[in-house]
Parts: sequence; structure tokens; C-alpha cells
Amino acid sequence: MSEKICVRGGRVLEPDGSSAPYRDLIIDDGTIVDIVSPEESRGVTTQIVNATDRLLIPGLVNAHTHGHGSLGRGMGDRWTLELLLNAGPWLSGKRTMEHKYIAAALNAAEMILKGCTSAYDLYFEFPAPTPEGMGTVAQAYRDVGARVVIAPMLADMSLYEAVPGLMDSLPEPLRRQAGQFALNPFEETAAACQTFLESWTHPADEAKPALAPTIPLHCSDPFLERCRDLARAHGVGLHTHLAESRTQAVSALKRYGRTLTAHLDALGVLGPNFTAAHGIWLDDDDIARLAANGCAVAHNPGSNLRLGTGVAPIRKLLDAGVRVGVGSDGTNSSDNQNMFEAVRLAANVSRVADVDPDRWVSAGEALKMATSEGAAILDLATATGRIEIGARADIVFLDLDNINLVPFNDPVNLLVYSEDATSVKSVMVNGRMVLDNGRFTRFDCRSLVRRAQDAAEELRARTAENRQISAQLERHVAKHCLCLCREPYPVERLICDPVKE
Amino acid sequence: MSEKICVRGGRVLEPDGSSAPYRDLIIDDGTIVDIVSPEESRGVTTQIVNATDRLLIPGLVNAHTHGHGSLGRGMGDRWTLELLLNAGPWLSGKRTMEHKYIAAALNAAEMILKGCTSAYDLYFEFPAPTPEGMGTVAQAYRDVGARVVIAPMLADMSLYEAVPGLMDSLPEPLRRQAGQFALNPFEETAAACQTFLESWTHPADEAKPALAPTIPLHCSDPFLERCRDLARAHGVGLHTHLAESRTQAVSALKRYGRTLTAHLDALGVLGPNFTAAHGIWLDDDDIARLAANGCAVAHNPGSNLRLGTGVAPIRKLLDAGVRVGVGSDGTNSSDNQNMFEAVRLAANVSRVADVDPDRWVSAGEALKMATSEGAAILDLATATGRIEIGARADIVFLDLDNINLVPFNDPVNLLVYSEDATSVKSVMVNGRMVLDNGRFTRFDCRSLVRRAQDAAEELRARTAENRQISAQLERHVAKHCLCLCREPYPVERLICDPVKE
Repeated sequence: MSEKICVRGGRVLEPDGSSAPYRDLIIDDGTIVDIVSPEESRGVTTQIVNATDRLLIPGLVNAHTHGHGSLGRGMGDRWTLELLLNAGPWLSGKRTMEHKYIAAALNAAEMILKGCTSAYDLYFEFPAPTPEGMGTVAQAYRDVGARVVIAPMLADMSLYEAVPGLMDSLPEPLRRQAGQFALNPFEETAAACQTFLESWTHPADEAKPALAPTIPLHCSDPFLERCRDLARAHGVGLHTHLAESRTQAVSALKRYGRTLTAHLDALGVLGPNFTAAHGIWLDDDDIARLAANGCAVAHNPGSNLRLGTGVAPIRKLLDAGVRVGVGSDGTNSSDNQNMFEAVRLAANVSRVADVDPDRWVSAGEALKMATSEGAAILDLATATGRIEIGARADIVFLDLDNINLVPFNDPVNLLVYSEDATSVKSVMVNGRMVLDNGRFTRFDCRSLVRRAQDAAEELRARTAENRQISAQLERHVAKHCLCLCREPYPVERLICDPVKE
Repeated sequence: MSEKICVRGGRVLEPDGSSAPYRDLIIDDGTIVDIVSPEESRGVTTQIVNATDRLLIPGLVNAHTHGHGSLGRGMGDRWTLELLLNAGPWLSGKRTMEHKYIAAALNAAEMILKGCTSAYDLYFEFPAPTPEGMGTVAQAYRDVGARVVIAPMLADMSLYEAVPGLMDSLPEPLRRQAGQFALNPFEETAAACQTFLESWTHPADEAKPALAPTIPLHCSDPFLERCRDLARAHGVGLHTHLAESRTQAVSALKRYGRTLTAHLDALGVLGPNFTAAHGIWLDDDDIARLAANGCAVAHNPGSNLRLGTGVAPIRKLLDAGVRVGVGSDGTNSSDNQNMFEAVRLAANVSRVADVDPDRWVSAGEALKMATSEGAAILDLATATGRIEIGARADIVFLDLDNINLVPFNDPVNLLVYSEDATSVKSVMVNGRMVLDNGRFTRFDCRSLVRRAQDAAEELRARTAENRQISAQLERHVAKHCLCLCREPYPVERLICDPVKE
């Protein structure tokens, strides 16, 4: 059923971001089939979508998020990554299918409201992923109207087993309590993944599966190899949090006698389907390995700041030819799904790491990461991340009268450095308005918000015991990881004041 | 004329941010006179302002902005501070009184839309400040409905004279062209300042004056001393960009043989009325001097990232007892007036500079900087920055149904880590709604936006020659400053990868 429409009267961001001429878009069955001047479109008699006073940009692509995180918004304050993980069993545990649906829908809705139409979602079901859970997540994204790649987060070792020496550092009876958070043997989890991959029924360009052995240190080597084989057999993506914290980087040298990247390379995990999230504590050899294997990096500058994990070496990755996307990360680690903020940080945090402005990430580079590069990481490059003939019509309508875009000096700079999502008016996915002048067209957002508030309250009671255990463990985790963190490491991604040394 | 109102049905953020109980506010003549439980307010028969489904927080206080910058939104990309200053003559020059008004009004309007009700505005008139210009700026803020401290930016040396060796490094005829940007002798500027201070007629809690010798290196010592004396004689604030860039820090050692702070201290400029903007390249002795003199720091984490100036040592400043506020900086250097983003960055960038989470800026500390501490810096501490009996009713109404605040887990964390201004619905200043459900009540914002677009277009033509000169100078400025930047300095505020050394 072909449905032809004309989006008329707007300014369209040029692919290189340098200008935004008035152009009308002809869309047939969800695909952009022509981009014409206002004069040329006068004769078009199809359904008209009014884009007067609107700037049209491609839907942003979120290369790394966690849909489950939306219910954990604003839960922690001065949490390192390891303190966040220590909170995992209460932050994300004890959830029913209804809770899992609400969390994913809330994440998708916030993305849409803030101009993002596609995401790579590493979804956490504790204690173990289920095919049913992943199907529920897919349905939530589809109900809201966003595209998604869904990767269950996988591990067979808890934080306490994964960080060298941590379990042994705990006093009894805390060690026993930490033991309660032990995970399933990997064979069980791998079997669930196999079912999940084999039973997938959603259309691949709307929702598709992937696998996320979440953190290499949290997965035994045989599990990593199994994930590698499963992903290859089913032609899906592999996504891992790689060298996110200094604690992880130091731990890898202790446990593997080599860096995390070198270890994954030796296991044959790296490849063109592999996305490394964060990739902060990479050395030059790690970067060369990622490049040689055609891997991508999902850069999450917001959560990197929030969790104090450091500044990723993005210029070096780009120089090496590694594809880089931008992610918001989960709402429980940098607490919104605002990709405009993420893209701004992608440009700006690079400037903490180099005095030479020619080495900074430019506005154009950052925007590309958040659009076409992200789409390539999601394996949607031909479908989205650009407004071009042949691409799907995933389009964000921004209000040109909003102060964020006034004066309209330079489109790409305005989008990257100024826009904060307050100018988002409407969002089209696949040629259909999913947000129309601030109102969702496909579901009742107010009802979702009420359900989310209720769910949070219910979960507060259900997770009380896990929360108490995590609270008792917190200071031990903090102390042990801080000691690890202070061990020497051959690269530095944080500021070290020479006065102190 | 007393006008009593009751703001009813909202949740009110507690001063420590830990909770937000349902409370009704009784406001008389712009001042909060009572805070009562919903039951207690039932009998109140005054005018009712409906705050159902709203979270009420104090209007945020912007400790450092530049109203002129709004017309320069998104103008540069990989600009260091010095490259921004090099663009100053075209970016902010050739403006009529109408342009100056529009720029200030646009800045104020964006502040209000994003939940900020008061600002310390360092306003730049090029080539020299005028009492008329400053009066125009005050009027613009008052017309929009925001409180403001207005400090003309003052200098008697151009960038090319201020940076040691820069003028000499320029080839002829560029040196002569840079010479065109020379500034007035300081006596003339000081006389204009005196008139500005003596002729001030606005009510002090709505708009009041201050002085901003903009960058110490750009002011001769006699000028700095004159500013010091003028400020003391009139009881107004002094505000300076202090040790913002590495180039400045290194330049000070060359020119003064001591740090910028030590130099200002020797000149007697430091004191309780002194606010240091940025304060990045401070050493421990500088910090002690600021503390001993009762000075404040306006922390601008957004522009510090954007211009690559580094990460300010906020924990050290707090430990020393220095008052710290948060600023958005000018829209021409970090290109919006979103104080929610600024407060988030204030918490999060501190985490690049220390591995110990106990040393990070907490959510509560950051929010305090952006409210009560900022109000103290603006010398409005008894009036605003808090919702308490006796304070003026400067109140932001946030939509509790907005996803940013869902689930409503922890108020202070949500405000600092999640909120991005998309939930701002209404803003009250001095007990009067200046923004009511997204619409300004006191002026026509759409008309302002049109005037701003027209002004930008007009200025593009008027400043073409200055722009051309700046473009020719750019690569010389970049090269010279990069060399200075690479000279050793005893503290480090950027990441230096040990692998490279």
C-alpha cells in the first residue's frame, strides 16, 4: 500500500551540514523518493505535511543506550561505574514483564521527544535474559515508533567475581551476601540467547536482535567465544563495554596479562559486527586492533563524565579509521536520553584532551557520528541517519522560531552547540508522524508516565532487600576499586595535577 | 499596592534538595510570606495560581553570561578562547542601540525559557562601553522580566597587545590591521564608567551595575587600579575572566613574573566584591589568595569544554572556602543559556579531575552553586535563589509529567542530572508570571525573534570588513597561542597522555 506524501515549506539540512536550503520532500511508502525546490513541488497533489518554519534534520541515532535504565533515573549521585554496577541488583532487578515494557517504552518515548529515532539498546534482565523479555522490549519500541537494535546484556560473573581481589576483600557475612548475586552458568544463558535469535519475528529495519556480552571481565572466556559464534551464526551484532573504567583497564592486566582489547582479539571476538562502548582506556595498540578488525566505537561522553571514567581518545580512533557513533548511555548512568546533549559533549569533551584545536572533534564530525555513523553501527546505514533520496523518512522537525536556532547563523554549529531539544516539534519515522506538534500519535504518553510512577513505587518495595545488601557492599567496592584505580597504567584519560606528584 | 496570591497544588523543592513535599506558597507583594501544607491553605481566598502537577524550584541564578553573545550563536567551531577574542571585532562590533537591545532581550528570554531568573551579565560594547548602552541592556532584561547585574566589559589593550609577543609575530600589513582594533585610552573608558555608575536609576534588586575589567592581561595596571577604586566608591561588584586559558596563565608569568591572581592581589583588586570567572589555571597559592580575600568564582563548565580551556579545580576552591557559582557563559562561547545543562556539567566535569568520588562535586553542591551561591555572588542572597519565607518569589514551574522527572526518584539528582529545560512550563519573578505555560506575558517573543534574525543579517553586512581582517589574523593567533600554550606551567588542567611524552 503505497502512501505518497509531500513535506512542504521547511528548510532541509544539507548532508554536510553547511547550509539548510528550502526544500520539499516527496515520500513514498516511508522512503524519500525526491527532494525538490519549493517551485518544483507546487504540482504535487499528494497528502501535504506542513513544514513551514521548520528545520528538517535526520532523526538522530543513539549508538548506545540501556532501555531498562529509564526507571533508575537520578538514582545515584557520586557513583563510579563500579558503584553503579554494585547497585544493579536493586536498580534493575525484581521486574515483571510489565516493568520491562514500561522501562523500554519510556526510553523510546524520551528519545523521540528529543529528536532521536533509532537506538542500539543493551537491555538488562536480572538475573538472566529471556527471549520473552527481549520480545517485550522490541514491542515497546515499536509501539512508540522508534527503530531499535536489541542486545540482551550477558554475563556469567558478578561484579564481585569480575574485579580481581574484590570478593576476597569482603568481610563475612558480606561475602556470602555478594554471593547471592551470582549469575547463571553461561550454557543456560547462551541457550536463552539462541532461542531469542531463532524466534525473532520483528521486521529487521524496525527492531532487530544483537548480543551484548556486557563487560569482558564479567564473562568467562568460553562464554565470550560462545557469544562470538552465536553472533556470527545469526549474522547479528556484538556489543561490549570496553575499557570503560580505569578499574577495568588495570584489572585486565592483572587477570589476562594483557589489555581487554588484546584479549578479545586473541579470542577472535573482534570483527566488523563488533561495537565497543566507551573505549576510554585504550592504548595505541588497542586502537590499531579495533581498526584492523573493522570494529566500531560507541562514544558516550555524558556518562563518561557522570561516572568519572575519563575522556575517550576519539581523535586517535578517527585517525585510525575506526567508525565512531554517539550514545546517550542508559538513563541510570547519565540521566536522560538527550542526544543533542550527547552530540555536543562528543565535540566538546575532546577539547580536554588536546591543546591543539585542529585535533578537536569538530561540529560536523560530531553530527556525523550521531547520524550516518550511528546508522552504520546499527546496520541501518541505507535506511536512516540522512535526508537523501533513497533513505527512509526518519525526520525531526525543529522550530526555526525557537531561540536555540536564532539567529540562524550556521546550521551544523547550531545543532551541535546550541540545540537542547527544546525546539523539537514533530518527529517522523518511516514516513509517519510519531510525534506531531509535541503529541505522540501512536500511544498514550500520559498513561505511560503514570504507569512508570506506579512501577517505580512498586519496585522500591520489591527491591528493598537487594538495595540493603548493595548499600552494605558499597563502601567496600568503592575502597577496593579506588586502590586498583590508583595503580599505574600506561595511558592516562584523567587529569593528573603535576603539583600533587 | 500589596497583591497577595497563593501558588497551590505543587510540590516544592526543600532547601537541601532531598525531598519535594506538597506545599502551597503564600506570596505578598512579590515576597514569599508563608509556606503551608495543602490543608492549611484551604482557607486562603486570595488569587490562586494553579501548580497542580508542577515541581516548584527556585529560579536558577546565572553567575556569568554575556548578553551581547546571543547574536553570535553558533558562529565558531574549533575556536580556542583566543580565536573567539580574535573574532570579537566582527562578532560583537558595529552594533546600533537597537542591536544591543535585541541581543540582551534574546539572552534574557532564553534564560527565562530555561528556568533561570537572574544573571550577572558582562556586556561587551565594541569599541567602548557607553552609559546609554548599559541602560539599554538593563531595560531589555526588565522588559523580559529577569533580574540582572550588568557589568560593562572593559579593556585598554587589544588581544594583539595583551598576549606577549603576538603583535610582533604578525607580518606587515597584518600588524597594521590588528592595530585598527586598538582600544580607547583607559581614562576615557573610566570616565564613561563613572557616568554609568552615577546615572543609574533602575531599582537595585531588578537591575544593578558592576564593572568588568574583562581580562587582567587586557587592562593596564593603572586601569585595573581605577576600576578597583570606582567599584569601591560606588559599592559595586568587580568581575574578571581569571586564568581562563593556559595561554593566559603562561602569559602572566612572562608579563608580570607572577600569576594573574598574585598580580591582582598585589594591585589590591581582590576583595569580597570580586568575582573571578572561570578560574581554571589557578595554583594552590592563587586559591588561597582568593579565599583570604573573600572572592567568589563563577564556574563556566560548558564554555570551558567548548573552548578547550580545561577543567577548573572546583573541589580545591570549595575546600578553601571560596564561594562558587555556575554560569552559562555567553551564547557566543557555549552556545545556549541553559543553566540546567551548566549545573549538570558543574557536577560532572569535576569527575575528570579526580579518581576519588568523594572529591567530586555532588548534585547538591552543584544545585546550590546554581541557586543560593549564585544569588550571593549577584548580591541578591536575601532576595532570590531559594524558596523560603522572606525570599522573593522567583519560582520555576516544572511539569511533573515530563519524562525528565519520571520516575520521581530523587529531586536533586533529577534536577542536576536529568533536567534539560524541556519540562519548564512557567516562570515567576517577583511574584509575577513572566512565562505562563510557555508564553511570555510581558513582551512579544515572536517579534523579538524576527528582529534578531533581521539584526543578524544586517550585521553580517556591516561587519564584513572586520570579519575579513579577523580571518586573516586567525592562523597567526592560533599558531602563536599554541606555542605559548605548550610552554611548561606548574599546574595541569588538561589531560596529558604519558604515552606521548
